[in-house]
Amino acid sequence: MGEQPVPERRDVLAYLRERRNWGRWGKDDQIGAVNLITARKRVAAAALVRSGRSVSLSRDFPKTPGPNNPTPGQHFMKVVPREGGAHAADYFGSYYHGWAFTHLDALCHTWDDGGMWNGRDPAREIGFDGARFGGVEHWREGIVTRGVLLDVPRHRREPYVRQDRPVHGWELDAIAKADGITLEPGDAVVVYSGREAWQAAHPEQAYGPGARPGLHASCLPFLRDHDVAVLVWDMMDLVPNGYDIPWAVHGAIFAYGVALLDNALLEPLARASAEEGRREFMLVIAPLPVVGGTGSPTNPLAIF
Amino acid sequence: MGEQPVPERRDVLAYLRERRNWGRWGKDDQIGAVNLITARKRVAAAALVRSGRSVSLSRDFPKTPGPNNPTPGQHFMKVVPREGGAHAADYFGSYYHGWAFTHLDALCHTWDDGGMWNGRDPAREIGFDGARFGGVEHWREGIVTRGVLLDVPRHRREPYVRQDRPVHGWELDAIAKADGITLEPGDAVVVYSGREAWQAAHPEQAYGPGARPGLHASCLPFLRDHDVAVLVWDMMDLVPNGYDIPWAVHGAIFAYGVALLDNALLEPLARASAEEGRREFMLVIAPLPVVGGTGSPTNPLAIF
Amino acid sequence: MGEQPVPERRDVLAYLRERRNWGRWGKDDQIGAVNLITARKRVAAAALVRSGRSVSLSRDFPKTPGPNNPTPGQHFMKVVPREGGAHAADYFGSYYHGWAFTHLDALCHTWDDGGMWNGRDPAREIGFDGARFGGVEHWREGIVTRGVLLDVPRHRREPYVRQDRPVHGWELDAIAKADGITLEPGDAVVVYSGREAWQAAHPEQAYGPGARPGLHASCLPFLRDHDVAVLVWDMMDLVPNGYDIPWAVHGAIFAYGVALLDNALLEPLARASAEEGRREFMLVIAPLPVVGGTGSPTNPLAIF
Amino acid sequence: MGEQPVPERRDVLAYLRERRNWGRWGKDDQIGAVNLITARKRVAAAALVRSGRSVSLSRDFPKTPGPNNPTPGQHFMKVVPREGGAHAADYFGSYYHGWAFTHLDALCHTWDDGGMWNGRDPAREIGFDGARFGGVEHWREGIVTRGVLLDVPRHRREPYVRQDRPVHGWELDAIAKADGITLEPGDAVVVYSGREAWQAAHPEQAYGPGARPGLHASCLPFLRDHDVAVLVWDMMDLVPNGYDIPWAVHGAIFAYGVALLDNALLEPLARASAEEGRREFMLVIAPLPVVGGTGSPTNPLAIF
Repeated sequence: MGEQPVPERRDVLAYLRERRNWGRWGKDDQIGAVNLITARKRVAAAALVRSGRSVSLSRDFPKTPGPNNPTPGQHFMKVVPREGGAHAADYFGSYYHGWAFTHLDALCHTWDDGGMWNGRDPAREIGFDGARFGGVEHWREGIVTRGVLLDVPRHRREPYVRQDRPVHGWELDAIAKADGITLEPGDAVVVYSGREAWQAAHPEQAYGPGARPGLHASCLPFLRDHDVAVLVWDMMDLVPNGYDIPWAVHGAIFAYGVALLDNALLEPLARASAEEGRREFMLVIAPLPVVGGTGSPTNPLAIF
Repeated sequence: MGEQPVPERRDVLAYLRERRNWGRWGKDDQIGAVNLITARKRVAAAALVRSGRSVSLSRDFPKTPGPNNPTPGQHFMKVVPREGGAHAADYFGSYYHGWAFTHLDALCHTWDDGGMWNGRDPAREIGFDGARFGGVEHWREGIVTRGVLLDVPRHRREPYVRQDRPVHGWELDAIAKADGITLEPGDAVVVYSGREAWQAAHPEQAYGPGARPGLHASCLPFLRDHDVAVLVWDMMDLVPNGYDIPWAVHGAIFAYGVALLDNALLEPLARASAEEGRREFMLVIAPLPVVGGTGSPTNPLAIF
Repeated sequence: MGEQPVPERRDVLAYLRERRNWGRWGKDDQIGAVNLITARKRVAAAALVRSGRSVSLSRDFPKTPGPNNPTPGQHFMKVVPREGGAHAADYFGSYYHGWAFTHLDALCHTWDDGGMWNGRDPAREIGFDGARFGGVEHWREGIVTRGVLLDVPRHRREPYVRQDRPVHGWELDAIAKADGITLEPGDAVVVYSGREAWQAAHPEQAYGPGARPGLHASCLPFLRDHDVAVLVWDMMDLVPNGYDIPWAVHGAIFAYGVALLDNALLEPLARASAEEGRREFMLVIAPLPVVGGTGSPTNPLAIF
Repeated sequence: MGEQPVPERRDVLAYLRERRNWGRWGKDDQIGAVNLITARKRVAAAALVRSGRSVSLSRDFPKTPGPNNPTPGQHFMKVVPREGGAHAADYFGSYYHGWAFTHLDALCHTWDDGGMWNGRDPAREIGFDGARFGGVEHWREGIVTRGVLLDVPRHRREPYVRQDRPVHGWELDAIAKADGITLEPGDAVVVYSGREAWQAAHPEQAYGPGARPGLHASCLPFLRDHDVAVLVWDMMDLVPNGYDIPWAVHGAIFAYGVALLDNALLEPLARASAEEGRREFMLVIAPLPVVGGTGSPTNPLAIF
């Protein structure tokens, strides 16, 4: 589980094509790897709640435009008077995929030329009113499972993941091992890469479009081998991914049916985890049930 | 705890003015009755998870215009090609207060001529960029507590609450007692009134603006006496409230600091509760952390 | 030009299929009948300006929800302070087709099973980023032509067009003749049907979805015979159209390339026209140049 | 009218304070300098239409995010099937002030510590539902007047206005004189500064926030002396304005009641003007009548 040779392009394609979970839960399945989160798994997750500390993994709803927030969250106010009182109301608008919003990706979110999750054809399934297959509403009962924090900066004794040293799958294994964690099917793996520290050290460069540090395609077999159901991360795919493919780790969506929780805020979680002396917790993700939605802005909670 | 005389206007004003919680958690407090949900309370809530069944309390994101949905949820799609693949993305827009969206009300949402939560002046606190006091971001770590279902139709042996027979506070006490439930500070009370059955029986009338069945102002002392932290409901305030006041049960927001979760979908919960043979469960509400937000669309989860 | 037999379905289909203008201005033309508005025509239109009176033909941007305004115009405010001063700004949002917004329809807006304007296939031309053919940007230089008011209530000596007595093409001819107007290619025909008076007389019924008075399919040959470039109207197609076809007068878009200006406010124009003693004026329509747009909210001006 | 000493701060404050038009058209006037556009003026404007050439002064509705477009125009599509046919519709959303949208500023748009147009108090007049004074709807009948092009690059024999050489009021006078133009009350002055050429020469710098070339505060007396009703410009205020005041030329809104048309696209107009051999034309601006709106995206037309 130490340093390993970086995979070739054919290896990465094999991760995405040969190991995919299509048909594993039926050819019409729209739940994906979240199927691995059984009722028993939820009970076990709840049993991890011991101190009662709850930590949000969400950034603020990002209203400020910027290079990594080209379509900022809209927040508009109204005050509506009413016989001797009033109420304040507001409008939220979000085109939330990208690098600014903490959000969940539904199974319909990505594809390559091999098709969408379970082999569906995006030309048929993606319409003007939403996705007809793999919409986020299929996770409406929430994603409630064990979360396991893999803290890369702590393991590396460096403040953040650098562009020239992406996170490899074997490193995630090494971190889990070092922390005495045994991954189990249906777990949510929470990979902390120190994005805030990176951003503070790179004020001129946005964690957004263009080159950025993150997780290497070698994390794909890690996700598949351990039957990970959910990947929560602050940094995302290493860009460029180096393989001339549209999707590397984000390919876990359509290949394995993994739920990706992008742009999580993990510094508070890393701190809480250190203080609690535990790497595992109950994780709750409750997407808005938008029928045909390609994901949802969410506020994931880690409860210790 | 049987039938009681309906309160006079002065009684209702007294509920809102004399019994309010202003200053109880400090004059600058923006958490309100959610302060009653301690870490210990969260641990106890998690301990209720025994079967692992998770139930969403959210309606679908309501895209269809109608009398009870005058500003429908916006859902627009994009497909963005990318070297041999693509991604689908979407825009969500919501002006979510009202009768259609399942949503949480923040402490800044309502006020009468006595002021906002903790005595703040709305003319100072509500601005074009959001609320400067009592915004929903103060609940960013989530609301995780014991939920207790009070099932009015089941208790009444009628399919839904009727316009001419609102739910009174003493009836909620009676239901709890009949179910052997002892309410505790920090609980979330979930009042099921059979809104879906009512709507099906009244196809010409929207559960929206205008007269509608619901909870009577007499529920205010019920909430206050039991130190309820959260009220989750499918039907809301009885309209007209009969007292010529802007806010009756919704006054619990600014008077007591109670978190209101409006337009919950509770039929599935009632069914699950019956099947599980339990009235209590772990409740998780995770609002989007919009700084200055007056609430948030949410997908509350009940976990048995 | 008196009463005539109402056309059969085959007649109406023939209007749409046999008389269409496809190829008339080239098979790739995206301007349609607006080609008929020549530079000379614009000069002649400007020469009609004699009193200098300018009249807006636009309703207020419709912010109020209602049965005929299911997706109301969004208007949100901001105030942005700035060293000793400030500015106020606002957000406009509109899903403007329908019955509430005064708006222009682009050539890509409607089709039947025979295809879009000039025979294009909507499955190829309509994408997530807009129309690739027939978008409103092709009219970016504005539609500037002679406008001719045909005032149906004045002609009928009735306050408004009734459901049981739609406007027929031969009646439009009769009105023009009675007013001494000779229609010319490239004219904008402005048909006033008394919508405000109708609405005032039918407070319980919205001029929106469902049955509504308006123009009969027999207006199609009127538009085609006179080479009308633009149809401006307050009431629109009679509904039901009586022919079991998706589009009757709205078929002039894809069949003839006519620009339709829906939901105009024509009562002020009718008044001004009477006061000025003239039925013709300079008409200016300046759509927002949204590339790929299916139309545009606009404020058309009639200048006498 | 040659080079003149650059005004001192006290001079600029005097332009804004001592020469303001408050009360000139009544203390409740909400039309401002557009009052100077009389019916006779509109007739004269129409009489300028001789070749019939119409030129849009609008940029494309700006959908692409960027440093000068932090809140890009939203354009979302729908296709709605309908018995054998369909229609395509779309949503436009715009927070249009700034540097990307061609738009009109209403009289309520800017103020300094002396107040809004006509001395009104913004704290009273600007509400959550729009401006109660000086909203764009007061120009609903359109702005139709003589437009006069002042082509700075042509006059300077340089492709664009540079940061270090702003446009002064005396230079505008000199251009008009050189072109044989006598400005008259109610004219729209169209100042072309070569923004496209500047942008092409400065690909790394957005014409947006931060330093940018443009018109100097010395243009204020030019506007006031000539009773200009409308200023149409591609570049806007020189930034920094050098006077430590919130608004320089943009102060003409609240001081003089001038209508500003920001971010016009003037290169095509300059070309047309050269080809037509004329500097004057009929100008038509037709804002969307949004009650309480602070302006409007518009497509201004110049008709020769």
